[in-house]
This record gives sequence, structure tokens and C-alpha cells, in this order.
Amino acid sequence: MKSLDEWIKTDLPQVANKLEEKLVSVYNIESDEEITVAGRDELFKTLDTILAALFPGTYSKFPVAGNKLNKYVTDILAIICKDLYHKIYPILIYRRSQNNCAPDCSCEEQAREASIEFVKSLPEIRETLIADIKSGHEGDPASKSYHEIILSYPYIEAVATHRIAHKLYSLNVPLIPRVMSERAHSRTGIDIHPGATIGKGFFIDHGTGVVIGETCRIGNNVTIYHGVTLGAFSPYDRENNRFQGKKRHPDVEDDVVIYSGAVILGGETIIGKGSVIGGNALITKSIAPYSQVYRKTETTVYKSVLKHSDGYYYYEI
Amino acid sequence: MKSLDEWIKTDLPQVANKLEEKLVSVYNIESDEEITVAGRDELFKTLDTILAALFPGTYSKFPVAGNKLNKYVTDILAIICKDLYHKIYPILIYRRSQNNCAPDCSCEEQAREASIEFVKSLPEIRETLIADIKSGHEGDPASKSYHEIILSYPYIEAVATHRIAHKLYSLNVPLIPRVMSERAHSRTGIDIHPGATIGKGFFIDHGTGVVIGETCRIGNNVTIYHGVTLGAFSPYDRENNRFQGKKRHPDVEDDVVIYSGAVILGGETIIGKGSVIGGNALITKSIAPYSQVYRKTETTVYKSVLKHSDGYYYYEI
Amino acid sequence: MKSLDEWIKTDLPQVANKLEEKLVSVYNIESDEEITVAGRDELFKTLDTILAALFPGTYSKFPVAGNKLNKYVTDILAIICKDLYHKIYPILIYRRSQNNCAPDCSCEEQAREASIEFVKSLPEIRETLIADIKSGHEGDPASKSYHEIILSYPYIEAVATHRIAHKLYSLNVPLIPRVMSERAHSRTGIDIHPGATIGKGFFIDHGTGVVIGETCRIGNNVTIYHGVTLGAFSPYDRENNRFQGKKRHPDVEDDVVIYSGAVILGGETIIGKGSVIGGNALITKSIAPYSQVYRKTETTVYKSVLKHSDGYYYYEI
Repeated sequence: MKSLDEWIKTDLPQVANKLEEKLVSVYNIESDEEITVAGRDELFKTLDTILAALFPGTYSKFPVAGNKLNKYVTDILAIICKDLYHKIYPILIYRRSQNNCAPDCSCEEQAREASIEFVKSLPEIRETLIADIKSGHEGDPASKSYHEIILSYPYIEAVATHRIAHKLYSLNVPLIPRVMSERAHSRTGIDIHPGATIGKGFFIDHGTGVVIGETCRIGNNVTIYHGVTLGAFSPYDRENNRFQGKKRHPDVEDDVVIYSGAVILGGETIIGKGSVIGGNALITKSIAPYSQVYRKTETTVYKSVLKHSDGYYYYEI
Repeated sequence: MKSLDEWIKTDLPQVANKLEEKLVSVYNIESDEEITVAGRDELFKTLDTILAALFPGTYSKFPVAGNKLNKYVTDILAIICKDLYHKIYPILIYRRSQNNCAPDCSCEEQAREASIEFVKSLPEIRETLIADIKSGHEGDPASKSYHEIILSYPYIEAVATHRIAHKLYSLNVPLIPRVMSERAHSRTGIDIHPGATIGKGFFIDHGTGVVIGETCRIGNNVTIYHGVTLGAFSPYDRENNRFQGKKRHPDVEDDVVIYSGAVILGGETIIGKGSVIGGNALITKSIAPYSQVYRKTETTVYKSVLKHSDGYYYYEI
Repeated sequence: MKSLDEWIKTDLPQVANKLEEKLVSVYNIESDEEITVAGRDELFKTLDTILAALFPGTYSKFPVAGNKLNKYVTDILAIICKDLYHKIYPILIYRRSQNNCAPDCSCEEQAREASIEFVKSLPEIRETLIADIKSGHEGDPASKSYHEIILSYPYIEAVATHRIAHKLYSLNVPLIPRVMSERAHSRTGIDIHPGATIGKGFFIDHGTGVVIGETCRIGNNVTIYHGVTLGAFSPYDRENNRFQGKKRHPDVEDDVVIYSGAVILGGETIIGKGSVIGGNALITKSIAPYSQVYRKTETTVYKSVLKHSDGYYYYEI
């Protein structure tokens, strides 16, 4: 039998050629062009810098002194502005090479415009997040302070990332918003598509398993619990066409509470203002304002086992 | 149009001022005091060091030689002791500044006391974790060895982190326990509030989506599966007051098994010793000991489609 | 009261001795042998290198130039080959010391064989992943490009890791496959046991909470949504024996779609070709091909609250 080093020298290059062939078949590399859209980790770093601007101290690597806050913020915003430009520009160039771009558009100008507009939106995003923080503190009796919310509640990372990603999505930046929202999904179990529109004062408790689809519209002061799905009926419409670009996900009006595991489906479904949706409810039609919807408790104790001195005995109810 | 560098020079400082304003409105920085409660990443490092003491080799960066184990353990406990002190002290100072502290208490003394008491509890925590490891090995037929449990079962990280966080919570350390429990939640999908009391021999299989509330009490040798919620009815009591400080979550007695997706709610709900709760059951009242509770299989095959040589045909059942 | 440094000097060594005692009781270290099976982080690095071979650019730290792809692939395969050998060998030695090994087997030879066979399988794994990528793009109307799928859809990381882990599992490599699959579980919320067999063109949308058991067999072009469980009835069979080594989990035939939260249990359960299983369905028996199974919508609006000029009034439906 060959030693490992011998095998690497003599046989491995053929395996490498085969793998290269499979790789190229999707990446479509024909020249010496770089795989420039690549690098999830680089995009995660960009996101971390933006989160560090919105939550100095908490998401930054070091504590920030109060009298240095202005310098900290000015510096970090300049970094974000340039960093975003260098991330967005090659993706626009790549998209152009795929013919998905208007012929007269300037990738450079578009990248600059998007970076600046994004940075300008950060104070407003932060203001909305303050309302989100307050909603969480009011909504969960276990919360002891705003600091606890910021430092430890996973919805903060998920919702902050969503507000960042949604802004970039609105500025027509491709790919980056989805990569960012999936970083939050990975860390929190909360899966919000960047396309979803979400009002202020939004609170998600626990969060694991929450799914909010691309065309959802959510009002102000809405609270949802873990495992809630705001989804589509099916990826295909009645004529079996792919459902792309159409409204497929529900609307949730102001002041609604949706308890854990509830599933709400369909692009024409509206949950009316002030309604409460109980745990594990399955909803496929609109619900009038100020309604309360609960799943029936359909479970049954069907067998009880009593302990006896010399063992167990069974009886049926 | 301005270049990016020009915009950064001329317009960005105003954006920075606006953002600073929004930041200060929650952080409440009035002097040059540092934002000392900050730094999630620093607290994650503390947690990693404690886990490396409880699981040398597995959670430590390098393998540990058997004849160096004593030196390893002694060194790492000294590090934990000092590190915790330096993390707890500024948070106590911060809490005092928020007037949530008794006037005669010494933050320094309290931080020292908590750090020492915590380190002293580690051998007992490790002993409890051994029982947890054994329960997992017995409970899952797919498990091949204790090493597999320690190295790859997510409940080990979640339950070890809980036992660490619960000890700190019992020692009245603010903020840190919740940050730790949320690190485990992020990595495992298992969300256990540090306030919950959990007996030995605890096993969670798969784990994603499990939620265990602050005032739960769980007995010995309890097994639960993914997606199980031990939760509260609502954040508000019948008089619509915030439910803070009251018992809001259920009790689970010894030897209970709860299958995936079951939801058990309410502070007066008790699942009696030796009971089995079936998957997706919804339980809002106490269950007698040795009961077996199942959700009815309410699904129906309502349409079957048979393939025909020239296509499909349908019939209703 | 003692200072912290005094306590560390005088009292801590006894705590360290106690902890050491508890540690040794499971690790069973009797000589100066190293805890060689340890080091989750080291195994995560191995996995990252393999993922970087399958997705250059995306999972690698830096973009890869097209004309350097062959060198990149050749180099990284050689690294994987040697790295795997050095990870597998000590685990085989450890397993031998536990008497779980045939007396005439050579750990060295087995480790070499497994490493080479694994590297040889990578082109085929990549080819299967291309089919998985295409399925995802077709299955989700929100997807804009293959690049978006690779960069941001969590099932790619979970399914790629599964195909890697399953190959190692088939080559009888202990421990490592489970550690790898749990890294993917931690990052994506998708829990696939390395033992499961999965055909090509597999797509998991959203993914959080998915559990696929050890003895599942899944056909080609199957799509499942978040929260789906393909599980076992119980860890014990009817004679209350531990269910080890037997088929405990269902089979899913080609072209099946399973919507979110469905639970399918049992080793004799088969979901027939082309069937559609609706959200939150609970299935414990085989389903004929081309069936459509839905949970009844058993929720009810039982209370509606109408707003009145001077407040609210209630009525029962």
C-alpha cells in the first residue's frame, strides 16, 4: 500500500482536477477573474462594525469612554462608509456581468450612493431600536434592565441586523442583505428576510424558530414568541407558476401579540389590529381587529399508571 | 456629486452627532465614565474558561496530559477566580449608580465573595454533569460513548452553561448569568433562564427550540426533546399587572419524559412524577403522577393521487 | 476576610483537587496518557478546510483567482488528507484501548485508508451539492441566484457538512462525524445524524428545528421546511430494550415535500413518492405514493372584541 505522502504526490492531482471541474461548472470562471462575490466572513466583519456603531461597548471589542464617544462614532462611521463601498462595488460589477443591470448605470456611483445613504440612515435605525428595546423590557417580566435587553436578548441582534439589511435591500444592494440576515439567523434562530417591513417597538421573545417571509408587513408594537411562522402557502401559485415577486406572506397590524408556534400563512391574510393569536394556532384567513384566536386543547390523558407496593398496575380512563 | 472621501470629511460629522445623541439617550452617559457593563465578547471568554475547567481537552484549546491535570486545574481555577472578580465588580458598581443597591453593601467584598463561592461550587457542578452525561448516553440509542456525548451533544454545553449561570444567579450576580445563558442559546437553540432549578441526570435530545422559563422547577432524571416549551401563560396577570417576581412557569417532577414540541404553561401546573408527555401536547393543568398524555392524531389523508399511464387522476377519500 | 490572592494561595488547591477527582472519574486517566480524543475546536478547523475545498471563495478566508484554482484545490486536498489522518489515528488508538477494535486491525492503515477514500469522494460530493443548490433555487421564490443560495442559505452548510460527515461515518470513523454534524446543527439549527442516507437535489428551507434521525433514508429531490422531525417513537422497543442498531426512523421517497413543523415517526413508516405532507401534521403510519396529508385547521375565533367610541365591548361567537 502506498504511504500517504506517495498517494498525495501521485494520485491526488487527478482528484484535484476532477474537483476543479465540478467547481467551475457552477462558478463559471472562464478567465483569471477572481471569485469576487465570495467571502462570507468578510461580510460578517462589515456587519459587526455596523452593530458596534449602533451598540458601542456591547458589540464593540472594548468599552468606550463617554467623553470619547463622539470620536468613536465619527471614526466608525467613516470606516463603515468606505468598507461598504468596497463590498458593494464588486457585487454590482458581478451583477452587471450577469446582464442584470441597466446599460447606463454606473456601478461606482451606485455603490457610493448606497454607502452614503446607508450611513445617513443609522441615527434613525438606532432610534427605532430604542423603541424595540423598550418593548422587550415591558413585554418580559424576567427582564431587569435595558442593559440586560441589549446585552442578552437575541431579538436585539436579529432585529438590529434586520433593520440594517432591510435598509440595504431598499437601496437595491444585492446579496449582502441576505448574507447579513442569515448571520443573525445562525446566531439567534430568528429568520427574517431582508424584504420584510417591520414597524417600531417590535419584540420577539426567545426567538428560536421564528420565520418572517420576504413580503410580510408588520405594524408597530407587535410582539411575537419563538417558533412563529409568517409564511407562504406554497412556492407555486394556482397555475403552478413560481411565485416570484408577488405578495406571498401575511400582514400583521399594530399591537398584535402572537404566541409561540403559531403559523400564519398567505399573502392575503391580515391579522387585525390589537388581536391575540394563541400558541400553535394555524391561521390561513384574515382575522378581524381585536380578535382572540386559540387552538383547542385537544390533548387527552388516556392512560394513567398507579404505583403499587409490589410494582405497577394500569387502568384505562 | 461629492466623492466618498469628501462626503466623509464634510457631511459625515453631522450624521455622527445625530447618532451620538441617540446613543446617549439610553446609555445615559453624563460624565467621562466608561460604559463598563459592556463587552459581550469578554463575558463569552470568561464562560469559555469555566467550560474548559469542567471539560479539559474538549472545551480547552489543547489536549491536556493526564499527569499535568492537577496543575492545569489549579491554574485555570485561579484564572477564573480573578477574571470573575474583575467582571462582577464593575457591574455591581454600575448597579449601585442605578440605586438598586443597599447603602451599606461593599461592591468589592460582594464581588470577592461571589467569585470564591462560585469557584468552590465547580466540583459539585462537575459531579452533577456526570449524571447528566450518563442520562444522555442511556436515553439515546444513537449514542456510542460518553466521549461522544461530551464532544458532540449540544445539551452538554447548554446544561453546563445553565449550571454555571444558575450558580451566579443564586449569588445575586446581575447581568452576567443571562449573557452566559444566551451564549448557550445562540449555539444550541436551547433557551434556559438562569433562574430555573434543574435536578441531576437531566437530558435534552436535539434541543433546538427548547424554552425553560425563569421560575421552572425540574426534578431528577428528567428527559426532554427539541421544541419543548415550559412557559408562562402571558406576561400579565389577571389584573393586567406585569408578572414580575411571581411563579409563572410549571414544575416537572422526577423521572418525567416530555417529547418534542410539547407546550406546558403556567405557574400552578405540575407534571407528576414518572409521567410521559407526548409530542406536540398542549398542557395547561396539572398532570397526575405516572400519567401518559398524548395529542390525538388529528391529521387526515384527504386526497390521494394515482399515477396513470397518460397522466394523473384524482379521487377523494 | 481573606483577600482574593490569599484565598487562591491557601484554599484554592483543595478545590482543584476535588475538581480533578471528579474529572478523572469520567476520563479514566490512569497514566500520563494525553486526553487525545479532545479538542472540538481542532475538529471544527478540519471541517472548515473541507468546506473551503468544496466552496472556494465562499467558505475560504480570501477570494480565489480563477487561474489559480487548480493550485488552490491541489494544495487544500493535500492539507485535508494529512489533517484527517492526524485526527483519525489517535481516535482509533483510543477506541482500541476501549476494546472496541478487532485484534488484527492496524489503526495506522485504517486511518490512511479512510483519509484517502474521503478525499477521493470530494468531487462526487461537490456534484451532489450542485443538485442541492439547484433544488433550493427552484424551490424558493425569494432566491435570486445560485450565488445567493451558496452564500446565504443555511441548508447549504448543513447538507454539505452532512455529506462530509456521512462519508466519514460510512468509512467507520468514530466520533468525528458527529462532532461535525453538531457544528452544522449549532450554526443552522438543522440536526442531521451522520448515519442518515440522503439523495441528491435535497432542499431544506429556513431549517431551524429540523431533526433527521440516524436510520432515515431520504430519496432524490425531497424538500422539507423548518421544524420538521423525522424521528423515532421512543428510545426503547416494546420489550423496553434500548433500540440500538435497529431501524427507528422513517423513509421518505423521491419528490416528497414536507411543510414546516410536520412530525413523522417510526422505523416502519414510509412516505410514498411524490406525496405532500402539510404543516404540523403528525404521521405515525406509512403514506401511499402521491398522497396529500394535511392537519385540520382546528383553531377557532372564540372571542371578538369590538371597539366602541367610549371603550370596548365584548361578545362571544
